[in-house]
Amino acid sequence: MKQYLPFLFIIALGCNQPAEKQTLSQFLSKGKWIDLSYDFSSETIYWPNNPVGFKLDTQFNGKTAGGYYYSSNAFFSPEHGGTHLDAPVHFAEGKWSADKIPLEQLLGEAVVIDVKTKTTNNADYQITVDDITAWEKENGTIHDGAIVLFRTGWGKFYPDAANYLGTAEKGEAATAKLHFPAIHPELAAWLIKNRKIKAVGVDTPSIDYGQSKDFKTHQLLYAENIPGFENVANLDSLPAKGAYVFALPMKIKAGSGGPLRIIAWVEKP
Amino acid sequence: MKQYLPFLFIIALGCNQPAEKQTLSQFLSKGKWIDLSYDFSSETIYWPNNPVGFKLDTQFNGKTAGGYYYSSNAFFSPEHGGTHLDAPVHFAEGKWSADKIPLEQLLGEAVVIDVKTKTTNNADYQITVDDITAWEKENGTIHDGAIVLFRTGWGKFYPDAANYLGTAEKGEAATAKLHFPAIHPELAAWLIKNRKIKAVGVDTPSIDYGQSKDFKTHQLLYAENIPGFENVANLDSLPAKGAYVFALPMKIKAGSGGPLRIIAWVEKP
Ligand SMILES: [Zn+2]
Ligand SMILES: [Zn+2]
Repeated sequence: MKQYLPFLFIIALGCNQPAEKQTLSQFLSKGKWIDLSYDFSSETIYWPNNPVGFKLDTQFNGKTAGGYYYSSNAFFSPEHGGTHLDAPVHFAEGKWSADKIPLEQLLGEAVVIDVKTKTTNNADYQITVDDITAWEKENGTIHDGAIVLFRTGWGKFYPDAANYLGTAEKGEAATAKLHFPAIHPELAAWLIKNRKIKAVGVDTPSIDYGQSKDFKTHQLLYAENIPGFENVANLDSLPAKGAYVFALPMKIKAGSGGPLRIIAWVEKP
Repeated sequence: MKQYLPFLFIIALGCNQPAEKQTLSQFLSKGKWIDLSYDFSSETIYWPNNPVGFKLDTQFNGKTAGGYYYSSNAFFSPEHGGTHLDAPVHFAEGKWSADKIPLEQLLGEAVVIDVKTKTTNNADYQITVDDITAWEKENGTIHDGAIVLFRTGWGKFYPDAANYLGTAEKGEAATAKLHFPAIHPELAAWLIKNRKIKAVGVDTPSIDYGQSKDFKTHQLLYAENIPGFENVANLDSLPAKGAYVFALPMKIKAGSGGPLRIIAWVEKP
Protein backbone atom coordinates (compact mmCIF):
# COMPACT_ATOMS: atom_id res chain seq x y z
CA MET A 1 0.00 0.00 0.00
CA LYS A 2 2.79 2.39 0.84
CA GLN A 3 3.51 3.16 -2.82
CA TYR A 4 -0.03 4.52 -3.40
CA LEU A 5 -0.14 6.87 -0.46
CA PRO A 6 1.06 10.03 -2.23
CA PHE A 7 -1.60 9.49 -4.86
CA LEU A 8 -4.33 8.99 -2.30
CA PHE A 9 -3.32 12.20 -0.59
CA ILE A 10 -3.49 14.28 -3.77
CA ILE A 11 -6.87 12.87 -4.74
CA ALA A 12 -8.32 13.45 -1.27
CA LEU A 13 -7.33 17.13 -1.49
CA GLY A 14 -9.22 17.50 -4.74
CA CYS A 15 -12.28 15.82 -3.32
CA ASN A 16 -14.06 18.82 -1.86
CA GLN A 17 -13.82 20.89 -5.04
CA PRO A 18 -17.20 19.92 -6.53
CA ALA A 19 -18.93 20.71 -3.22
CA GLU A 20 -17.38 24.19 -3.02
CA LYS A 21 -18.43 25.05 -6.58
CA GLN A 22 -22.09 24.11 -6.08
CA THR A 23 -24.40 27.13 -6.07
CA LEU A 24 -27.15 27.67 -3.50
CA SER A 25 -29.65 27.34 -6.32
CA GLN A 26 -28.29 23.88 -7.17
CA PHE A 27 -28.29 22.89 -3.51
CA LEU A 28 -31.91 24.01 -3.03
CA SER A 29 -33.03 22.07 -6.12
CA LYS A 30 -32.50 18.90 -4.06
CA GLY A 31 -35.43 19.85 -1.86
CA LYS A 32 -38.95 21.28 -1.93
CA TRP A 33 -40.64 24.31 -0.39
CA ILE A 34 -43.50 24.12 2.09
CA ASP A 35 -45.60 27.17 2.98
CA LEU A 36 -46.20 27.30 6.73
CA SER A 37 -48.38 30.43 6.45
CA TYR A 38 -52.15 30.91 6.41
CA ASP A 39 -53.45 33.64 4.15
CA PHE A 40 -54.95 36.87 5.52
CA SER A 41 -58.68 37.31 4.92
CA SER A 42 -61.88 38.03 6.83
CA GLU A 43 -61.56 34.43 8.14
CA THR A 44 -58.20 35.08 9.80
CA ILE A 45 -58.09 34.21 13.50
CA TYR A 46 -57.39 37.03 15.99
CA TRP A 47 -57.51 37.19 19.78
CA PRO A 48 -61.16 37.73 20.83
CA ASN A 49 -60.51 41.18 22.29
CA ASN A 50 -59.85 42.63 18.81
CA PRO A 51 -63.10 44.29 17.71
CA VAL A 52 -61.87 44.12 14.08
CA GLY A 53 -59.52 41.58 12.54
CA PHE A 54 -58.13 41.69 9.01
CA LYS A 55 -59.95 44.07 6.71
CA LEU A 56 -59.25 44.51 2.99
CA ASP A 57 -60.67 47.64 1.33
CA THR A 58 -60.82 47.87 -2.45
CA GLN A 59 -59.24 51.10 -3.72
CA PHE A 60 -59.89 50.24 -7.35
CA ASN A 61 -60.84 47.14 -9.31
CA GLY A 62 -61.77 47.31 -12.98
CA LYS A 63 -61.02 49.06 -16.24
CA THR A 64 -59.35 52.48 -15.95
CA ALA A 65 -59.98 55.54 -18.12
CA GLY A 66 -56.76 54.50 -19.91
CA GLY A 67 -58.42 51.27 -21.00
CA TYR A 68 -56.31 48.83 -18.99
CA TYR A 69 -57.30 46.67 -15.99
CA TYR A 70 -56.14 47.76 -12.53
CA SER A 71 -56.75 46.53 -8.99
CA SER A 72 -55.45 47.87 -5.70
CA ASN A 73 -56.43 47.60 -2.04
CA ALA A 74 -55.61 48.94 1.40
CA PHE A 75 -55.82 46.82 4.52
CA PHE A 76 -56.08 46.95 8.29
CA SER A 77 -54.80 44.36 10.75
CA PRO A 78 -53.88 44.03 14.39
CA GLU A 79 -50.24 42.85 14.57
CA HIS A 80 -51.21 39.65 16.39
CA GLY A 81 -53.42 37.49 14.21
CA GLY A 82 -53.12 34.82 11.56
CA THR A 83 -49.65 33.42 11.00
CA HIS A 84 -47.60 36.06 12.79
CA LEU A 85 -44.46 37.02 14.61
CA ASP A 86 -44.31 37.88 18.28
CA ALA A 87 -41.34 40.21 18.63
CA PRO A 88 -39.69 40.01 22.05
CA VAL A 89 -40.88 43.56 22.89
CA HIS A 90 -44.45 42.20 22.88
CA PHE A 91 -43.87 41.10 26.50
CA ALA A 92 -40.36 42.37 27.34
CA GLU A 93 -39.68 46.09 27.48
CA GLY A 94 -36.55 47.17 25.64
CA LYS A 95 -36.11 43.88 23.80
CA TRP A 96 -36.21 43.53 19.99
CA SER A 97 -39.12 44.98 18.04
CA ALA A 98 -40.14 43.35 14.73
CA ASP A 99 -37.73 45.46 12.66
CA LYS A 100 -34.77 44.86 14.99
CA ILE A 101 -34.65 41.06 15.05
CA PRO A 102 -31.46 40.00 13.21
CA LEU A 103 -32.21 37.89 10.12
CA GLU A 104 -29.99 35.09 11.48
CA GLN A 105 -32.45 34.68 14.36
CA LEU A 106 -35.30 34.03 11.92
CA LEU A 107 -33.53 31.49 9.72
CA GLY A 108 -32.53 28.08 10.97
CA GLU A 109 -32.94 24.34 11.13
CA ALA A 110 -36.27 23.23 12.53
CA VAL A 111 -36.89 20.80 15.34
CA VAL A 112 -40.51 19.58 15.20
CA ILE A 113 -41.93 18.20 18.43
CA ASP A 114 -45.18 16.30 18.05
CA VAL A 115 -47.52 16.15 21.05
CA LYS A 116 -50.74 15.18 19.28
CA THR A 117 -51.33 12.14 21.49
CA LYS A 118 -51.33 14.43 24.55
CA THR A 119 -53.80 16.98 23.16
CA THR A 120 -56.42 14.64 21.66
CA ASN A 121 -58.55 14.70 24.80
CA ASN A 122 -57.01 17.72 26.47
CA ALA A 123 -57.37 21.16 24.88
CA ASP A 124 -55.63 22.61 27.93
CA TYR A 125 -52.46 20.56 27.50
CA GLN A 126 -49.17 22.34 28.24
CA ILE A 127 -46.11 20.90 26.55
CA THR A 128 -43.56 19.74 29.13
CA VAL A 129 -39.86 18.97 29.45
CA ASP A 130 -40.84 15.27 29.18
CA ASP A 131 -41.99 15.91 25.60
CA ILE A 132 -38.56 17.31 24.78
CA THR A 133 -36.85 14.39 26.49
CA ALA A 134 -38.88 11.94 24.40
CA TRP A 135 -37.97 13.81 21.19
CA GLU A 136 -34.28 13.92 22.09
CA LYS A 137 -34.26 10.20 22.88
CA GLU A 138 -35.33 9.53 19.29
CA ASN A 139 -33.50 12.34 17.50
CA GLY A 140 -30.56 13.47 19.61
CA THR A 141 -30.01 16.66 21.59
CA ILE A 142 -31.61 19.82 20.16
CA HIS A 143 -28.73 21.57 18.38
CA ASP A 144 -27.65 25.16 18.93
CA GLY A 145 -29.55 27.54 16.71
CA ALA A 146 -32.65 25.36 16.34
CA ILE A 147 -36.06 26.83 15.60
CA VAL A 148 -38.31 24.68 17.78
CA LEU A 149 -41.78 24.09 16.36
CA PHE A 150 -44.48 22.39 18.44
CA ARG A 151 -47.07 20.31 16.62
CA THR A 152 -50.20 19.93 18.73
CA GLY A 153 -52.46 18.97 15.82
CA TRP A 154 -54.53 22.13 16.30
CA GLY A 155 -53.96 23.16 12.69
CA LYS A 156 -56.82 20.90 11.63
CA PHE A 157 -59.30 23.29 13.31
CA TYR A 158 -58.05 26.49 11.62
CA PRO A 159 -59.92 28.86 10.95
CA ASP A 160 -62.91 27.48 12.88
CA ALA A 161 -62.76 29.72 15.97
CA ALA A 162 -65.05 27.57 18.13
CA ASN A 163 -62.65 24.62 17.86
CA TYR A 164 -59.35 26.42 17.28
CA LEU A 165 -59.67 29.06 20.00
CA GLY A 166 -62.21 27.23 22.12
CA THR A 167 -64.78 29.97 21.56
CA ALA A 168 -66.16 31.93 18.63
CA GLU A 169 -67.27 34.75 20.93
CA LYS A 170 -65.68 38.19 20.67
CA GLY A 171 -64.81 40.72 23.34
CA GLU A 172 -62.70 40.84 26.49
CA ALA A 173 -64.99 38.40 28.38
CA ALA A 174 -64.44 35.70 25.74
CA THR A 175 -60.74 35.41 26.65
CA ALA A 176 -61.74 33.37 29.72
CA LYS A 177 -63.23 30.78 27.36
CA LEU A 178 -60.06 30.15 25.36
CA HIS A 179 -58.95 26.53 25.24
CA PHE A 180 -55.97 25.36 23.18
CA PRO A 181 -52.62 23.75 24.01
CA ALA A 182 -49.20 25.47 24.06
CA ILE A 183 -45.85 25.59 25.86
CA HIS A 184 -45.63 25.15 29.66
CA PRO A 185 -43.63 27.96 31.32
CA GLU A 186 -41.44 25.31 32.98
CA LEU A 187 -40.46 24.09 29.52
CA ALA A 188 -39.71 27.67 28.42
CA ALA A 189 -37.44 28.09 31.47
CA TRP A 190 -35.78 24.73 30.77
CA LEU A 191 -35.08 25.61 27.12
CA ILE A 192 -33.54 28.94 28.12
CA LYS A 193 -31.29 27.27 30.67
CA ASN A 194 -30.33 24.11 28.80
CA ARG A 195 -30.53 24.70 25.04
CA LYS A 196 -29.51 27.53 22.70
CA ILE A 197 -32.55 27.99 20.46
CA LYS A 198 -33.29 30.82 17.98
CA ALA A 199 -37.09 30.88 18.14
CA VAL A 200 -40.20 28.86 18.98
CA GLY A 201 -43.34 28.26 16.95
CA VAL A 202 -46.76 26.73 17.58
CA ASP A 203 -49.72 25.58 15.48
CA THR A 204 -52.05 27.26 17.99
CA PRO A 205 -52.98 30.94 18.58
CA SER A 206 -50.41 31.55 21.33
CA ILE A 207 -47.24 30.13 22.86
CA ASP A 208 -49.08 30.14 26.24
CA TYR A 209 -52.09 27.84 26.51
CA GLY A 210 -55.61 29.25 26.22
CA GLN A 211 -56.26 29.31 29.96
CA SER A 212 -53.07 31.21 30.81
CA LYS A 213 -53.62 34.35 32.88
CA ASP A 214 -50.05 35.63 33.17
CA PHE A 215 -48.52 34.59 29.81
CA LYS A 216 -45.45 33.36 31.63
CA THR A 217 -44.03 31.49 28.61
CA HIS A 218 -44.16 34.75 26.62
CA GLN A 219 -42.54 36.65 29.48
CA LEU A 220 -39.70 34.16 29.92
CA LEU A 221 -38.73 33.61 26.28
CA TYR A 222 -39.09 37.22 25.15
CA ALA A 223 -36.97 38.48 28.05
CA GLU A 224 -34.20 36.39 26.41
CA ASN A 225 -34.88 37.86 22.93
CA ILE A 226 -36.25 34.54 21.68
CA PRO A 227 -39.11 35.40 19.25
CA GLY A 228 -42.32 33.38 18.86
CA PHE A 229 -44.26 32.32 15.76
CA GLU A 230 -47.99 31.73 16.26
CA ASN A 231 -50.70 30.11 14.11
CA VAL A 232 -48.02 28.33 12.08
CA ALA A 233 -49.63 26.26 9.30
CA ASN A 234 -48.94 22.87 7.75
CA LEU A 235 -46.64 21.52 10.46
CA ASP A 236 -47.81 18.03 9.42
CA SER A 237 -45.64 18.40 6.31
CA LEU A 238 -42.41 18.68 8.31
CA PRO A 239 -40.08 15.90 9.46
CA ALA A 240 -39.00 15.70 13.12
CA LYS A 241 -35.68 17.24 12.12
CA GLY A 242 -33.75 18.44 9.06
CA ALA A 243 -36.21 21.00 7.67
CA TYR A 244 -34.84 24.53 7.32
CA VAL A 245 -37.12 27.44 8.23
CA PHE A 246 -37.20 30.95 6.71
CA ALA A 247 -39.45 33.14 8.85
CA LEU A 248 -39.70 36.62 7.33
CA PRO A 249 -41.99 39.06 9.17
CA MET A 250 -43.31 42.33 7.82
CA LYS A 251 -40.69 44.87 8.91
CA ILE A 252 -42.82 47.11 11.13
CA LYS A 253 -40.72 49.80 12.79
CA ALA A 254 -41.13 49.46 16.57
CA GLY A 255 -43.69 46.73 15.94
CA SER A 256 -44.53 44.24 18.70
CA GLY A 257 -45.05 41.64 15.97
CA GLY A 258 -46.86 41.37 12.67
CA PRO A 259 -47.75 39.25 9.64
CA LEU A 260 -45.21 36.50 9.08
CA ARG A 261 -44.46 34.61 5.89
CA ILE A 262 -42.83 31.44 7.09
CA ILE A 263 -41.70 28.70 4.74
CA ALA A 264 -39.61 25.57 5.08
CA TRP A 265 -37.19 23.77 2.81
CA VAL A 266 -37.24 19.99 3.08
CA GLU A 267 -34.80 17.70 1.32
CA LYS A 268 -36.39 15.30 -1.15
CA PRO A 269 -36.16 11.69 0.01
CA MET B 1 -0.17 4.34 -14.09
CA LYS B 2 -2.32 1.36 -15.03
CA GLN B 3 -1.79 -0.33 -11.69
CA TYR B 4 -3.32 2.60 -9.80
CA LEU B 5 -6.49 2.87 -11.84
CA PRO B 6 -8.77 0.64 -9.72
CA PHE B 7 -7.83 2.69 -6.67
CA LEU B 8 -8.48 5.97 -8.40
CA PHE B 9 -11.90 4.74 -9.44
CA ILE B 10 -12.88 3.73 -5.91
CA ILE B 11 -11.70 7.03 -4.48
CA ALA B 12 -13.50 9.04 -7.14
CA LEU B 13 -16.77 7.29 -6.22
CA GLY B 14 -16.32 8.29 -2.61
CA CYS B 15 -15.57 11.87 -3.55
CA ASN B 16 -19.08 13.23 -3.70
CA GLN B 17 -20.08 11.84 -0.32
CA PRO B 18 -19.17 14.92 1.76
CA ALA B 19 -21.06 17.18 -0.65
CA GLU B 20 -24.23 15.06 -0.46
CA LYS B 21 -24.17 14.95 3.33
CA GLN B 22 -23.78 18.70 3.77
CA THR B 23 -26.85 20.31 5.34
CA LEU B 24 -28.47 23.51 4.05
CA SER B 25 -27.47 25.13 7.32
CA GLN B 26 -23.82 24.27 6.67
CA PHE B 27 -24.07 25.51 3.09
CA LEU B 28 -25.64 28.82 4.16
CA SER B 29 -22.91 29.39 6.76
CA LYS B 30 -20.55 30.09 3.85
CA GLY B 31 -22.46 33.27 3.08
CA LYS B 32 -24.10 36.27 4.70
CA TRP B 33 -27.63 37.71 4.72
CA ILE B 34 -28.55 41.12 3.36
CA ASP B 35 -31.89 42.74 4.10
CA LEU B 36 -33.31 44.35 0.97
CA SER B 37 -36.37 45.71 2.81
CA TYR B 38 -37.17 49.15 4.23
CA ASP B 39 -39.11 49.20 7.46
CA PHE B 40 -42.73 50.38 7.63
CA SER B 41 -43.30 53.63 9.52
CA SER B 42 -44.91 57.04 9.06
CA GLU B 43 -41.94 57.80 6.75
CA THR B 44 -42.77 54.98 4.34
CA ILE B 45 -43.16 56.09 0.72
CA TYR B 46 -46.57 55.60 -0.95
CA TRP B 47 -47.96 56.73 -4.28
CA PRO B 48 -49.15 60.36 -3.86
CA ASN B 49 -52.82 59.51 -4.41
CA ASN B 50 -52.98 57.62 -1.09
CA PRO B 51 -54.48 60.05 1.45
CA VAL B 52 -53.02 57.92 4.25
CA GLY B 53 -49.90 55.75 4.15
CA PHE B 54 -48.71 53.42 6.90
CA LYS B 55 -50.36 54.03 10.26
CA LEU B 56 -49.49 52.22 13.50
CA ASP B 57 -52.01 52.48 16.34
CA THR B 58 -51.00 51.51 19.84
CA GLN B 59 -53.46 49.04 21.39
CA PHE B 60 -51.52 48.80 24.63
CA ASN B 61 -48.04 49.74 25.85
CA GLY B 62 -47.10 49.54 29.51
CA LYS B 63 -47.61 47.58 32.69
CA THR B 64 -50.75 45.43 32.86
CA ALA B 65 -52.96 44.82 35.86
CA GLY B 66 -51.11 41.50 36.14
CA GLY B 67 -47.86 43.38 36.76
CA TYR B 68 -46.04 42.44 33.55
CA TYR B 69 -45.08 44.61 30.56
CA TYR B 70 -47.13 44.29 27.38
CA SER B 71 -47.20 46.10 24.03
CA SER B 72 -49.41 45.55 21.02
CA ASN B 73 -50.46 47.55 17.95
CA ALA B 74 -52.77 47.49 14.97
CA PHE B 75 -51.82 48.97 11.63
CA PHE B 76 -53.22 50.26 8.35
CA SER B 77 -51.47 50.26 4.99
CA PRO B 78 -52.27 50.48 1.30
CA GLU B 79 -50.87 47.35 -0.39
CA HIS B 80 -48.55 49.38 -2.61
CA GLY B 81 -46.02 51.27 -0.52
CA GLY B 82 -42.62 50.75 1.02
CA THR B 83 -40.80 47.60 -0.02
CA HIS B 84 -43.67 45.68 -1.56
CA LEU B 85 -44.87 43.06 -3.97
CA ASP B 86 -46.86 43.78 -7.09
CA ALA B 87 -48.89 40.63 -7.72
CA PRO B 88 -49.67 40.09 -11.41
CA VAL B 89 -53.38 40.77 -10.76
CA HIS B 90 -52.45 44.38 -9.96
CA PHE B 91 -52.54 45.07 -13.73
CA ALA B 92 -53.67 41.76 -15.28
CA GLU B 93 -57.16 40.46 -14.60
CA GLY B 94 -57.27 36.78 -13.64
CA LYS B 95 -53.53 36.48 -13.06
CA TRP B 96 -51.96 35.56 -9.70
CA SER B 97 -52.96 37.46 -6.57
CA ALA B 98 -50.43 37.81 -3.72
CA ASP B 99 -51.51 34.55 -2.05
CA LYS B 100 -51.44 32.55 -5.29
CA ILE B 101 -47.87 33.18 -6.46
CA PRO B 102 -45.96 29.88 -6.14
CA LEU B 103 -43.04 30.11 -3.70
CA GLU B 104 -40.64 28.96 -6.45
CA GLN B 105 -41.42 32.15 -8.36
CA LEU B 106 -40.29 34.27 -5.41
CA LEU B 107 -37.03 32.47 -4.71
CA GLY B 108 -34.12 32.54 -7.13
CA GLU B 109 -30.70 33.70 -8.19
CA ALA B 110 -30.44 37.44 -8.68
CA VAL B 111 -29.14 39.30 -11.69
CA VAL B 112 -28.30 42.89 -10.71
CA ILE B 113 -28.19 45.41 -13.54
CA ASP B 114 -26.59 48.73 -12.68
CA VAL B 115 -27.66 51.81 -14.65
CA LYS B 116 -26.48 54.52 -12.26
CA THR B 117 -24.41 56.28 -14.91
CA LYS B 118 -27.55 56.69 -17.02
CA THR B 119 -29.73 58.13 -14.24
CA THR B 120 -27.30 60.61 -12.68
CA ASN B 121 -28.58 63.50 -14.79
CA ASN B 122 -31.82 61.94 -15.95
CA ALA B 123 -34.56 61.16 -13.44
CA ASP B 124 -36.76 60.11 -16.36
CA TYR B 125 -34.40 57.40 -17.59
CA GLN B 126 -35.99 54.18 -18.85
CA ILE B 127 -33.79 51.09 -18.73
CA THR B 128 -33.29 49.65 -22.21
CA VAL B 129 -32.33 46.43 -23.95
CA ASP B 130 -28.85 47.98 -24.42
CA ASP B 131 -28.39 47.94 -20.63
CA ILE B 132 -29.10 44.22 -20.63
CA THR B 133 -26.75 43.65 -23.56
CA ALA B 134 -23.96 45.44 -21.69
CA TRP B 135 -24.59 43.32 -18.58
CA GLU B 136 -24.63 40.08 -20.57
CA LYS B 137 -21.38 41.00 -22.33
CA GLU B 138 -19.70 41.14 -18.92
CA ASN B 139 -21.58 38.36 -17.13
CA GLY B 140 -23.05 35.97 -19.68
CA THR B 141 -26.65 35.39 -20.74
CA ILE B 142 -29.29 35.89 -18.04
CA HIS B 143 -30.07 32.34 -16.89
CA ASP B 144 -33.53 30.78 -16.74
CA GLY B 145 -35.23 31.48 -13.43
CA ALA B 146 -33.35 34.71 -12.71
CA ILE B 147 -34.82 37.42 -10.49
CA VAL B 148 -33.74 40.56 -12.33
CA LEU B 149 -33.04 43.54 -10.07
CA PHE B 150 -32.38 46.99 -11.55
CA ARG B 151 -30.08 49.31 -9.63
CA THR B 152 -30.71 52.93 -10.61
CA GLY B 153 -29.05 54.41 -7.51
CA TRP B 154 -32.38 55.88 -6.38
CA GLY B 155 -32.11 54.13 -3.02
CA LYS B 156 -29.91 56.94 -1.75
CA PHE B 157 -32.96 59.28 -1.78
CA TYR B 158 -35.29 57.02 0.24
CA PRO B 159 -37.47 58.13 2.12
CA ASP B 160 -37.08 61.75 0.98
CA ALA B 161 -40.19 62.04 -1.22
CA ALA B 162 -39.09 65.22 -3.02
CA ASN B 163 -36.02 63.46 -4.40
CA TYR B 164 -37.19 59.85 -4.45
CA LEU B 165 -40.61 60.41 -6.05
CA GLY B 166 -39.81 63.74 -7.64
CA THR B 167 -42.45 65.47 -5.53
CA ALA B 168 -43.46 65.56 -1.88
CA GLU B 169 -46.97 66.70 -2.78
CA LYS B 170 -49.96 64.47 -2.11
CA GLY B 171 -53.14 63.91 -4.08
CA GLU B 172 -54.08 62.81 -7.58
CA ALA B 173 -52.64 65.95 -9.21
CA ALA B 174 -49.18 65.22 -7.78
CA THR B 175 -48.85 62.07 -9.91
CA ALA B 176 -48.04 64.27 -12.92
CA LYS B 177 -44.97 65.50 -11.04
CA LEU B 178 -43.43 62.08 -10.46
CA HIS B 179 -39.87 61.70 -11.74
CA PHE B 180 -37.83 58.54 -11.20
CA PRO B 181 -36.27 55.94 -13.50
CA ALA B 182 -37.56 52.42 -14.18
CA ILE B 183 -37.96 49.75 -16.88
CA HIS B 184 -38.76 50.70 -20.49
CA PRO B 185 -41.76 48.75 -21.86
CA GLU B 186 -39.61 47.68 -24.81
CA LEU B 187 -37.22 46.01 -22.37
CA ALA B 188 -40.16 44.31 -20.61
CA ALA B 189 -41.33 42.96 -23.98
CA TRP B 190 -37.79 41.84 -24.85
CA LEU B 191 -37.35 39.99 -21.54
CA ILE B 192 -40.66 38.17 -22.01
CA LYS B 193 -39.70 37.11 -25.52
CA ASN B 194 -36.02 36.30 -25.04
CA ARG B 195 -35.37 35.30 -21.43
CA LYS B 196 -37.18 33.13 -18.83
CA ILE B 197 -37.17 35.27 -15.70
CA LYS B 198 -39.08 34.71 -12.44
CA ALA B 199 -39.56 38.31 -11.32
CA VAL B 200 -38.23 41.85 -11.60
CA GLY B 201 -37.30 44.35 -8.91
CA VAL B 202 -36.39 48.03 -8.77
CA ASP B 203 -34.90 50.46 -6.24
CA THR B 204 -37.52 53.04 -7.26
CA PRO B 205 -41.27 53.36 -6.46
CA SER B 206 -42.49 51.61 -9.62
CA ILE B 207 -41.35 49.33 -12.42
CA ASP B 208 -42.65 52.01 -14.87
CA TYR B 209 -40.87 55.36 -14.75
CA GLY B 210 -42.43 58.32 -12.96
CA GLN B 211 -43.78 59.97 -16.09
CA SER B 212 -45.54 56.85 -17.37
CA LYS B 213 -49.22 57.35 -18.16
CA ASP B 214 -50.18 53.81 -19.24
CA PHE B 215 -47.95 51.64 -17.01
CA LYS B 216 -47.10 49.51 -20.01
CA THR B 217 -44.23 47.67 -18.29
CA HIS B 218 -46.64 46.61 -15.52
CA GLN B 219 -49.22 45.52 -18.11
CA LEU B 220 -46.76 43.45 -20.13
CA LEU B 221 -44.94 41.63 -17.32
CA TYR B 222 -47.99 40.95 -15.17
CA ALA B 223 -49.93 39.53 -18.13
CA GLU B 224 -47.16 36.87 -18.15
CA ASN B 225 -47.47 36.23 -14.37
CA ILE B 226 -44.07 37.81 -13.73
CA PRO B 227 -44.36 39.65 -10.37
CA GLY B 228 -42.65 42.94 -9.52
CA PHE B 229 -40.81 44.10 -6.40
CA GLU B 230 -40.78 47.87 -5.78
CA ASN B 231 -38.81 50.11 -3.41
CA VAL B 232 -36.21 47.36 -2.98
CA ALA B 233 -33.51 48.51 -0.52
CA ASN B 234 -29.75 48.07 -0.30
CA LEU B 235 -29.15 46.94 -3.88
CA ASP B 236 -25.63 48.42 -3.54
CA SER B 237 -24.76 45.44 -1.35
CA LEU B 238 -25.36 42.91 -4.13
CA PRO B 239 -22.91 41.58 -6.72
CA ALA B 240 -23.82 41.63 -10.43
CA LYS B 241 -24.60 37.93 -10.18
CA GLY B 242 -24.53 35.03 -7.71
CA ALA B 243 -26.74 36.46 -4.94
CA TYR B 244 -29.82 34.38 -4.08
CA VAL B 245 -33.06 36.22 -3.32
CA PHE B 246 -35.86 35.18 -0.94
CA ALA B 247 -38.85 37.47 -1.53
CA LEU B 248 -41.65 36.61 0.91
CA PRO B 249 -44.76 38.79 0.70
CA MET B 250 -47.51 39.03 3.26
CA LYS B 251 -50.00 36.37 2.14
CA ILE B 252 -53.04 38.57 1.48
CA LYS B 253 -55.90 36.55 0.05
CA ALA B 254 -56.88 38.07 -3.32
CA GLY B 255 -54.33 40.83 -2.68
CA SER B 256 -52.99 42.87 -5.60
CA GLY B 257 -49.70 43.09 -3.70
CA GLY B 258 -48.54 43.91 -0.20
CA PRO B 259 -45.65 44.31 2.22
CA LEU B 260 -42.64 42.30 1.11
CA ARG B 261 -39.74 41.06 3.21
CA ILE B 262 -37.00 40.48 0.69
CA ILE B 263 -33.54 39.29 1.67
CA ALA B 264 -30.51 38.03 -0.20
CA TRP B 265 -27.84 35.47 0.53
CA VAL B 266 -24.37 36.32 -0.75
CA GLU B 267 -21.41 33.97 -0.59
CA LYS B 268 -18.49 35.26 1.48
CA PRO B 269 -15.46 36.05 -0.64
ZN1 LIG C 1 -48.79 37.23 19.07
ZN1 LIG D 1 -46.93 48.33 -6.50
